[in-house]
Amino acid sequence: MNVFEYPLPVTTVDAALLTLRGERLHVALHRRENIPEQGKLALPGGVIHIDEDVDTDAAVLRVLQQKTGFIPRYIEQLRVFSGKRDNRWDWSVSVAYIALVPLADLEAAGKGVFHFYDVDDLPVDLAFDHRRIIAAAVERVRNKSAYSTLPCALLPEQFTLTQLQKTYEAVLQVKLDKANFRRRIDAMGCVIPTGEFQSGMQRPAKFYRFENVMVFNKAL
Amino acid sequence: MNVFEYPLPVTTVDAALLTLRGERLHVALHRRENIPEQGKLALPGGVIHIDEDVDTDAAVLRVLQQKTGFIPRYIEQLRVFSGKRDNRWDWSVSVAYIALVPLADLEAAGKGVFHFYDVDDLPVDLAFDHRRIIAAAVERVRNKSAYSTLPCALLPEQFTLTQLQKTYEAVLQVKLDKANFRRRIDAMGCVIPTGEFQSGMQRPAKFYRFENVMVFNKAL
Repeated sequence: MNVFEYPLPVTTVDAALLTLRGERLHVALHRRENIPEQGKLALPGGVIHIDEDVDTDAAVLRVLQQKTGFIPRYIEQLRVFSGKRDNRWDWSVSVAYIALVPLADLEAAGKGVFHFYDVDDLPVDLAFDHRRIIAAAVERVRNKSAYSTLPCALLPEQFTLTQLQKTYEAVLQVKLDKANFRRRIDAMGCVIPTGEFQSGMQRPAKFYRFENVMVFNKAL
Repeated sequence: MNVFEYPLPVTTVDAALLTLRGERLHVALHRRENIPEQGKLALPGGVIHIDEDVDTDAAVLRVLQQKTGFIPRYIEQLRVFSGKRDNRWDWSVSVAYIALVPLADLEAAGKGVFHFYDVDDLPVDLAFDHRRIIAAAVERVRNKSAYSTLPCALLPEQFTLTQLQKTYEAVLQVKLDKANFRRRIDAMGCVIPTGEFQSGMQRPAKFYRFENVMVFNKAL
């Protein structure tokens, strides 16, 4: 049977762009200006440009660059969501991605189209199946964070060990033991002193930076 | 910019159908009869039928049913492979799946189109990017098997604890301690005696069956 007997589904890329704000995970959403689902909140996304995108990874980076003004610190494929999920195209495929970015990077980029929403307290008016995509993204990030350096992608370039612990605690939604946490971070061997100190403190804390490699370890 | 200004990529589903044979992981491949890559070995796959498939999961199950004659014991989305990976369609998207099936089910289905190849000793003439898809599928299965009941999907309905241990050892490529292994399996609580015994043995071994739920645990 000839492949071209079948109409092609529209294939898009969408990103659950996550950041930490007030020690809680937030996701970037914008209000849709056009039909369908006009006025509803949606993830940044777009169609693939087969003439310029090498693959779907390149497509989602292009879309994020265009819509938010920057490339996120960390990005990975989540999974495909498909079927009649969008009444504009009827049957469509979304290749969904997880992107992590420090809040400071977002504020520096300064494109005002996106607003941030607490992932554990989302508004009701989300477009399409974006609530499902966000839920799957948050579950993946929380699962991976328990045994990897993934939360480092939410921190600024330089951070203190207290900031690092607070970041893990915010993502994992647990309180961690300080001594145990520092032992595990040492064991990962990817958080390195920068030689600088946090200013304006009575007992200045050392600044650290993160070697940009994902390290997997036993659960924290 | 209008979405329809862009030509749509062809989106297909492909399955890395894995089984155990002679205590080694094997993948199902068939020789392509048509151009392009005529005569090369390929995974079972096909285009989405948007008029009948609810989503890509349904599409891959339909393709496997049509091409192999059965529904696999276990299936999960692996990830998307995309770009200029196929000179017939130029830019395409493959939603790749991992499927696990006991060898006996395959033999009972009896469609002779597919042949099984050791995943650690693949032939050189694989079509498209199917070598990459198989490598990613095998890596995922081995990683998950260390801390889940995933390998049970490779066993027949009834099995002995010795068969179960040999299956884990074959997938993980390690030798496991018998007492430790049995303790961990007990702790998972999802392998249940059937009340039957293996026949033709001097000391008949108990048969067990697997409750069809994936259980995650600490590494074996």
